[in-house]
Amino acid sequence: MNNLFSMKDLSTEEILEILHTAESFAKGENWAPAKQTFAVNLFFEPSTRTKTSFEMAERKLGIEVIPFETGTSSILKGETLEDTLKTLESIGVDLAVIRHEQDAFYESLAGRVQMKIVNGGDGCGQHPTQSLLDLLTIKQDFGKFEDLKVTIVGDLSHSRVARSNTEALTALGAEVFYSGPPEWFEGDAENAQNYVDIDEAIRFSDVIMLLRIQHERHDSMMDLTAEQYHERYGLTQERDERMKPGSIIMHPGPVNRGVEIADSLVESRKSRIFRQMENGVYARMAVIKHILDK
Amino acid sequence: MNNLFSMKDLSTEEILEILHTAESFAKGENWAPAKQTFAVNLFFEPSTRTKTSFEMAERKLGIEVIPFETGTSSILKGETLEDTLKTLESIGVDLAVIRHEQDAFYESLAGRVQMKIVNGGDGCGQHPTQSLLDLLTIKQDFGKFEDLKVTIVGDLSHSRVARSNTEALTALGAEVFYSGPPEWFEGDAENAQNYVDIDEAIRFSDVIMLLRIQHERHDSMMDLTAEQYHERYGLTQERDERMKPGSIIMHPGPVNRGVEIADSLVESRKSRIFRQMENGVYARMAVIKHILDK
Amino acid sequence: MNNLFSMKDLSTEEILEILHTAESFAKGENWAPAKQTFAVNLFFEPSTRTKTSFEMAERKLGIEVIPFETGTSSILKGETLEDTLKTLESIGVDLAVIRHEQDAFYESLAGRVQMKIVNGGDGCGQHPTQSLLDLLTIKQDFGKFEDLKVTIVGDLSHSRVARSNTEALTALGAEVFYSGPPEWFEGDAENAQNYVDIDEAIRFSDVIMLLRIQHERHDSMMDLTAEQYHERYGLTQERDERMKPGSIIMHPGPVNRGVEIADSLVESRKSRIFRQMENGVYARMAVIKHILDK
Repeated sequence: MNNLFSMKDLSTEEILEILHTAESFAKGENWAPAKQTFAVNLFFEPSTRTKTSFEMAERKLGIEVIPFETGTSSILKGETLEDTLKTLESIGVDLAVIRHEQDAFYESLAGRVQMKIVNGGDGCGQHPTQSLLDLLTIKQDFGKFEDLKVTIVGDLSHSRVARSNTEALTALGAEVFYSGPPEWFEGDAENAQNYVDIDEAIRFSDVIMLLRIQHERHDSMMDLTAEQYHERYGLTQERDERMKPGSIIMHPGPVNRGVEIADSLVESRKSRIFRQMENGVYARMAVIKHILDK
Repeated sequence: MNNLFSMKDLSTEEILEILHTAESFAKGENWAPAKQTFAVNLFFEPSTRTKTSFEMAERKLGIEVIPFETGTSSILKGETLEDTLKTLESIGVDLAVIRHEQDAFYESLAGRVQMKIVNGGDGCGQHPTQSLLDLLTIKQDFGKFEDLKVTIVGDLSHSRVARSNTEALTALGAEVFYSGPPEWFEGDAENAQNYVDIDEAIRFSDVIMLLRIQHERHDSMMDLTAEQYHERYGLTQERDERMKPGSIIMHPGPVNRGVEIADSLVESRKSRIFRQMENGVYARMAVIKHILDK
Repeated sequence: MNNLFSMKDLSTEEILEILHTAESFAKGENWAPAKQTFAVNLFFEPSTRTKTSFEMAERKLGIEVIPFETGTSSILKGETLEDTLKTLESIGVDLAVIRHEQDAFYESLAGRVQMKIVNGGDGCGQHPTQSLLDLLTIKQDFGKFEDLKVTIVGDLSHSRVARSNTEALTALGAEVFYSGPPEWFEGDAENAQNYVDIDEAIRFSDVIMLLRIQHERHDSMMDLTAEQYHERYGLTQERDERMKPGSIIMHPGPVNRGVEIADSLVESRKSRIFRQMENGVYARMAVIKHILDK
């Protein structure tokens, strides 16, 4: 594994290997590259949460992180992403984590740079390390993926997480369902097929995976107020009580408390929300180890 | 000591202990946490000076500092400070230094997060590490606080430093006076009582502690020009010559040369202004050690 | 050597010593300061490329880099550069790399601060480490400077690089020529003397040193389109074929592909463009070693 662009790059076997490595990091194992190693985190879209998680993963592996301010970079002078990467490569950077607003930004880079690249999220496309941390979280609880029922609640069309997760979970043997405002699934034959009402979903799902309502991307939530969305499609306290025994709640954060999920549930016994953040560091450490150790 | 929010959290004994530790750092002693430790400096108000001082203190203690850009953080997406801290805590951050424009921002956090927190300045409230560095500077010169006369010159109502210092100095046995434009003390019965004219203050004060004129916060200096302020309330070269023998000049910086203090006095023999900055690193190292070593 | 402000500060012997040190770093030699050392990179003009190169050089030498955001610094509150540096010095910073929009900003600092300073580029003045990396690149190829013919192509009046390079190359025994739109050399008697047409330059030059067309600084390229500039003054693929055998192409980056140079030549056999970036790290390591090791 030279780069990680998309979950599609990973075989089921490779996914399980990375999760295994991540679990060993979660248990306190250490690993560091043999020589002084330099990383940059190129975030062309702001994302403090993911950037901080990568930074922490890199530091825990003893990697030196070179700060790079995309807001003042030569890219503003018209330099292409490829030339920026070649510059960083020439300067001695070994690894770049890239978040970019353009879907599949990495396609134009394949074979053009020597540096190792991890996709930190592209447009409405992929976000593979988020998928891996979600998988790690599920594996920690259930020890397997086969026959698990996972319902993703929210707007799939704007979610990198949902795309990556659906592919990986299906490949690993889980069954994936969708919930949320039915309008969001209209014209999407494939997903509409697995659409379930939230009240149905909570009865049979092992995992309720909530997505963030993207105020930034949606002009409106179809004229619903936050309270109305919560009541009709959100995980209310009342619905929580009817969830399948042993089931868990996931959310990639940041949470809109009282919208996707009742305020009181964010830190409840079933919630894995903060565990997911912790696992993000281990999953990213594992990905970086697999890439550098190759 | 789990956190440092306010000087009010510290007993006189704890203050003296921290100063003792700070003096040992000033003499070149070292200390480092037993395990790899991560800090973030969350500055929601810009302050390069304080931020850089904390960063240096952390680095000298061998702590890894994770960069955190508040300008692009999830807080912009409506995330609460508490959720941001819980995220950082989940990711593995041990210590957060927070500067925030809201007075007593920390009150809502008490008992809600596990992470250690140091207040790096809140609104017009507290700035405890600035107080500690000021105390350290005085202690280095006089070896004690009892019976010292300290005059703070400037606008108390907009100064975190003055508030924290007054409380601590009084508790330690010093006597605190105030000077500056009388209008700034009107309606403030307690401070008005200890008001002295600058020409009187310089005769009896062991410490003249100048505050920065906050152009950013004041709409005007009551129609005074910088020259007029300097002449009536500032530490002019002429006043410097009439200061009590053995007395010292302090200023938290950045200095408005020629306003609070004559340009030529900033680096004079009596000035402790750059010493204060140096001491800031030692005071912050001491606070962090006390918090982490607990 | 206490500081590096300008190539004029360096004797020919000192330049050769620094290049020698840089070559040893290029070969993998290591050096680190005896004690924990702190640097800041103060970039008042954005330049990701140069800043990243300095950051990498510092990290490779085991120097701790304290982040400093010029955009939110006390300089915005009216603090002078000298006071900012004295603050950083008091806090414990050993070395400052400064890029500043003001020509010869360093003149006012001489003898005023103890901290070591490296000029990372001033206004339209000097950019000594860029010169040194260019010299290093030439020395790697030709092993000497005597009798080499170097043609600088572009707008000298707006280029720090060209100024520094001309002085140093001449002192080292090379002969420097200029090319580009003749209008750019009008009224500049000294440079006009060595003006050559690009078609002539490529026949006799050992080094074709292209400058970036500074869209940011020029209001227009004298009504030339990018294609017209390339055709008349740029290094086209056709001109490349007529270059003197053994000659090399240099460009400080970022490249305007298809303007100064044909897209296909940027990574050609003759191009040293990415080598220059790599050499930038070694040249900066060498400068910092010479300054700290004094």
